[in-house]
Amino acid sequence: LAETGPAGVGASETSAARRRAPIALYGLTPTVEAAVRAAIAADRPGQIRSLVQPLHSADVADLLERLDDAQRRRVIDAIRRHFDPEILSHLDDSVREEVIELLGAQDVAAAVSELETDDAVDLIEDLDDDIRRRVLAALPAAERVLVEQSLTYPEESAGRLMRREVAAIPQGWTVGQTIDVMRTDQALPDDFNELCVVNGEGRLVGMVALSRLLRANRPVRVTDMMATDFKRIPPTMDREEVAFLFRQYGLVTAPVVDDAGALLGVITVDDVVTVIEEESEEDLMRLGGVGDADIHASPYQTAGRRIRWLVATFVNAVIASTVISQFEASIQQIVTLAVLMPIVAAMGGNAGMQVVTVVVRALATKELSSANALRVIGKELAVGAINGVVFAVLLGTLAGLWFANPGIGLVLAGAMVFNMLWAGLAGTLIPLSLARLGMDPAIGAGPFLTTTTDVLGFFSFLGLATLFLL
Amino acid sequence: LAETGPAGVGASETSAARRRAPIALYGLTPTVEAAVRAAIAADRPGQIRSLVQPLHSADVADLLERLDDAQRRRVIDAIRRHFDPEILSHLDDSVREEVIELLGAQDVAAAVSELETDDAVDLIEDLDDDIRRRVLAALPAAERVLVEQSLTYPEESAGRLMRREVAAIPQGWTVGQTIDVMRTDQALPDDFNELCVVNGEGRLVGMVALSRLLRANRPVRVTDMMATDFKRIPPTMDREEVAFLFRQYGLVTAPVVDDAGALLGVITVDDVVTVIEEESEEDLMRLGGVGDADIHASPYQTAGRRIRWLVATFVNAVIASTVISQFEASIQQIVTLAVLMPIVAAMGGNAGMQVVTVVVRALATKELSSANALRVIGKELAVGAINGVVFAVLLGTLAGLWFANPGIGLVLAGAMVFNMLWAGLAGTLIPLSLARLGMDPAIGAGPFLTTTTDVLGFFSFLGLATLFLL
Repeated sequence: LAETGPAGVGASETSAARRRAPIALYGLTPTVEAAVRAAIAADRPGQIRSLVQPLHSADVADLLERLDDAQRRRVIDAIRRHFDPEILSHLDDSVREEVIELLGAQDVAAAVSELETDDAVDLIEDLDDDIRRRVLAALPAAERVLVEQSLTYPEESAGRLMRREVAAIPQGWTVGQTIDVMRTDQALPDDFNELCVVNGEGRLVGMVALSRLLRANRPVRVTDMMATDFKRIPPTMDREEVAFLFRQYGLVTAPVVDDAGALLGVITVDDVVTVIEEESEEDLMRLGGVGDADIHASPYQTAGRRIRWLVATFVNAVIASTVISQFEASIQQIVTLAVLMPIVAAMGGNAGMQVVTVVVRALATKELSSANALRVIGKELAVGAINGVVFAVLLGTLAGLWFANPGIGLVLAGAMVFNMLWAGLAGTLIPLSLARLGMDPAIGAGPFLTTTTDVLGFFSFLGLATLFLL
Repeated sequence: LAETGPAGVGASETSAARRRAPIALYGLTPTVEAAVRAAIAADRPGQIRSLVQPLHSADVADLLERLDDAQRRRVIDAIRRHFDPEILSHLDDSVREEVIELLGAQDVAAAVSELETDDAVDLIEDLDDDIRRRVLAALPAAERVLVEQSLTYPEESAGRLMRREVAAIPQGWTVGQTIDVMRTDQALPDDFNELCVVNGEGRLVGMVALSRLLRANRPVRVTDMMATDFKRIPPTMDREEVAFLFRQYGLVTAPVVDDAGALLGVITVDDVVTVIEEESEEDLMRLGGVGDADIHASPYQTAGRRIRWLVATFVNAVIASTVISQFEASIQQIVTLAVLMPIVAAMGGNAGMQVVTVVVRALATKELSSANALRVIGKELAVGAINGVVFAVLLGTLAGLWFANPGIGLVLAGAMVFNMLWAGLAGTLIPLSLARLGMDPAIGAGPFLTTTTDVLGFFSFLGLATLFLL
């Protein structure tokens, strides 16, 4: 963040102040939340209802997430009869499961039938088999068919993301005809910004933005004003790639089209915003070793999910320990080695994780590809060399003075340069190789990298010391 | 990611395959890129132009980012006369600076005058004072005023993000009148999905979605069909908070309104997508210790930016070393301590970073507040206890058997439980305290945390060993 410019200082001050302040325009204010908690404690369902009902569905979801199990049950019981189905779409997975259990299959089915197909699919795909079957059975037949069709597409694909309710018109129409029919057609979605133009076989031939339709003259034929140069998304495309296209080309609506060109549905930017957030959160969480984190999961669930990463750390630490154990004799002679050896490993590990973070992110945003991989590796080696020399001088001098032993300083400096270079090389090569193998670099790169930097850090420092100081 | 469900296996297989495949529908294919590089090498400006011009501006930006300085100059020279101003909006900071220098103030001003105000402001705010003055001076007066007004709002505020070109109508109009005027009004923005309804004093009184306008009957007055219950964004609101509101409430367009209620501009979801991405990238990069990363920056710039985090690591490592140096006598007697001591620090540090990652993210998404902080701390302590016991048993047994010394195993187990509990407590308290103090928890929490887990890890293990084994 640039801290310069005329508004620089003021801006960062107000930003800090705002961090402390409650969020403006956010419906679930601390006052409302406290009032709901008080109404729950006093066991007043009527009061709970009158506090919760004016809230936006997303705010009700936040409220439910913040309550404990017993409180949640009270709120659900109070609002059950007027339950806004959108609330379910906004809930985190673990809380959603609980709320669905509290509501029961019948009430969930009623809620789902009011949702648009994309939200319905998003909800149903996560349900357990048994309740999923019961909810599907309770849906109106027409909607059930659409939802079941969407569920045939792979998880996390465009087919799951698309809305089936599409505003489409035949290619023969004029602007005037279109506007007149739109005034009377009840089957149209509530909100839409683009019309799809289809031919007699249901193939998509063009798109018309409403703002352009409104500004065209009534006798103009839609085929003469429609856009034909737009992205047609196949239903099997990975949602991460869909999100990439929306970001890259600033899309607001994109049609989903099958191999034959038939219009299947549309994806809108609001769904993609969720995907973008979830995907970058996924990278963050995976790099942090948390996996699929959910702040509302129970301690047992959470401990279980995190244990995989800790096992990787454990294996890594044991490997590093076996390296150290090879040098027990050297450490026995110069105990100072034991004092300094964690420094090399820590510096190498952190420098390497800097590189891994940048490379994982660049792979996710497609900024890094095989075309520029060599240049990036070269650059990271250069960065490693620069910072290696800087910290070699700093740490070498410090250690030499601390223990009044220039030899120790030189050995530490040498190990530092070597390990920082390695951090630059391994920090690029490991995530690139994982991606090439079709694995997620955000998951594997961290543990792999720190194992190598630890092992090489200890080995280079203790090895150089054994060679030159004994 | 759920790996179950009917499409589970197939889905993850195709996803892996897709990671290797080039991105479908992405304009800058490897073939195009290779052809451009060949045309540059052969010094054929005409060929460069005919390859680059059909590309989307975002793809041209990607191309420029991937080229080196000399190649970039060739491309800019080839397309200078038909330079699409949108390209500048899509470029990363460091490459943008270079391209602006290559274009010169006059050409940049011409480009900026074709952009919408929000994109123009986004571009101009990053320019150096000198070139900024020259670009502003070269803008048409009407646009200059709008841009300069936007620049008076704080950096990263709603005022900088908003577009000044607004489709607004007076409150007295009917649907028919509105449609008729829209057909003839040339001053309207190209694309918009909502109309603002303003009263005689320019105050915003309502919003009308185009899809609703189109479906209303011509004689209906817009005031009778407009929405009045929507979020009015103040121009000083932090853009992170704007993004939160768009996500939370699924907004597509939101009006920016001053204290008196006057309409200043609108913020659209496509600008917010960029903010959401940048903000979660910021958290990722800060947690990874990279600061403001830019894969296209030079090695010197990059090394300089990363050095701060490495200095923090350095200070941390030196503090940890002084702790170890207090136990030199113990290590001299039992060298095995030196072999095992990095394990405790590594496990504590990684468990703590898991907690920090979750807490930083929950603070950013407002899922964590003072209302539920105590519950989260309690949960993380429980997780620490569970995983502490799991790894105490595992590691204690392993170490006891490895060195045929049950005492070493017990000491390691005790230090492990203690350090995992501390990781849970410090991992929540440190980011929460930083946020309370108005600092960014994503920057400070990592170094603070690992210093404490390292110091306590070494201290508890070596201390317990000194107490019980000597």
